[in-house]
Amino acid sequence: MKVNGAWTKEGERIDDLQRDGLFIIQHPGKFCFGIDAVLLSGFCRLHKSYEVADLGTGTAILPILLSAKSGAKHFVGLEIQEDMADMALRSVRMNGLDDRISIINGDLKESSSILGKNCYEAVVCNPPYYRVGGGKRNPCRELEIARHEVMCTIEDIVRESQAILKQSGHLFMIYTASRLSEVLSLLSKKGLQPKRLRLVHPFKDKDANLFMVEAVKGGHEGMVVEPPLIVYKKPGFYTDEVRALYSS
Amino acid sequence: MKVNGAWTKEGERIDDLQRDGLFIIQHPGKFCFGIDAVLLSGFCRLHKSYEVADLGTGTAILPILLSAKSGAKHFVGLEIQEDMADMALRSVRMNGLDDRISIINGDLKESSSILGKNCYEAVVCNPPYYRVGGGKRNPCRELEIARHEVMCTIEDIVRESQAILKQSGHLFMIYTASRLSEVLSLLSKKGLQPKRLRLVHPFKDKDANLFMVEAVKGGHEGMVVEPPLIVYKKPGFYTDEVRALYSS
Repeated sequence: MKVNGAWTKEGERIDDLQRDGLFIIQHPGKFCFGIDAVLLSGFCRLHKSYEVADLGTGTAILPILLSAKSGAKHFVGLEIQEDMADMALRSVRMNGLDDRISIINGDLKESSSILGKNCYEAVVCNPPYYRVGGGKRNPCRELEIARHEVMCTIEDIVRESQAILKQSGHLFMIYTASRLSEVLSLLSKKGLQPKRLRLVHPFKDKDANLFMVEAVKGGHEGMVVEPPLIVYKKPGFYTDEVRALYSS
Repeated sequence: MKVNGAWTKEGERIDDLQRDGLFIIQHPGKFCFGIDAVLLSGFCRLHKSYEVADLGTGTAILPILLSAKSGAKHFVGLEIQEDMADMALRSVRMNGLDDRISIINGDLKESSSILGKNCYEAVVCNPPYYRVGGGKRNPCRELEIARHEVMCTIEDIVRESQAILKQSGHLFMIYTASRLSEVLSLLSKKGLQPKRLRLVHPFKDKDANLFMVEAVKGGHEGMVVEPPLIVYKKPGFYTDEVRALYSS
């Protein structure tokens, strides 16, 4: 590995992912990955033959984690922000993952033009959760793009995922529980049948704040709701399941 | 209370509901209430001013339980099977609940003609879960009607609930988890917005088998997913929460 200065730009830092010797470049003032990406990386089921697209890859945290957690052949991360895509690319190179992960600077609303139609076995996505005007606004542009539907809406993501996936291809997504009904309806309507669902609760006796869903292009109706994923056993202490997701 | 013979017909028995001295007449060869009705009775939130309709009331288990668990003003139970409606009516009278529960022998597909439009604050429903041809068929006609969409489909139930509910009225329903996405989509599409959802898991580490949903006529998008309801702490032993639902 090169020394810090050779990989990073001003304000950036290198964080140890504590898995297979992997690292990630992040800019604390802009965006650092959260638990959502880690939870989603544990939910995805990727076969080694899969070509996988990550729509809105940000720092490339998902493809980097999934390169270690799955045997999937190849990942493409699409990212609209040039600076972010550049940072993601440096992380990929720093980890020596150039052969398994490609980064493209482009707009996910045009995924099917950029990446092609009917050619991916899987799409992964950790999209912005809030409508513009909903949730707390963030004065930092990068954070706002990550959290609010400024650059793309959930409708864009579902439409483009459906377009780039092969028939029977899989979409894996994490999203805010308050929009569960809306998203399940949208997926079915657009030909991505929800087949597997898992609710994420901060504590076992608290409302869910997130859900993870696997939807299949052209799948039949009928789904499985997996056991709930509980994040904390007590304040500040992850459950064993979540702790295991953070370590190799 | 009259002696057994005066209330029951051949093959029927009287069961103690272990709540407020309530009893129910059931026919073990036809249909006895299950845990679904008990769970749903714990999920419903009924204000004392409510006029409540139970679509497909069967033995009237839901209105009888809810008469004790809630202060709701009045319940109407609609039941298509004449024998079952007659049994339900005898249970209501046996419990001295004639002033709070009415039983009507009629087809729920015609609820809005029978009960009127826009006039209920709440609908409760424990409908048949399986498509005709799906699940195990039951040679007993009464059981088949309770479990399979022989007499009505989920579409009928949603359409009629929407029609009889007042604006902002509430539908409370329990259903099979394998059809969660389908039912949430259908509710939204028909103007009954899912606002509160609870998954039911037999054990904490097992897939959900049921869900309970509260939908509001003309409600806005945005929902709460409550903590999971776990039925058993170990085989044969209910969790404290479920045990509490069975006792007063």
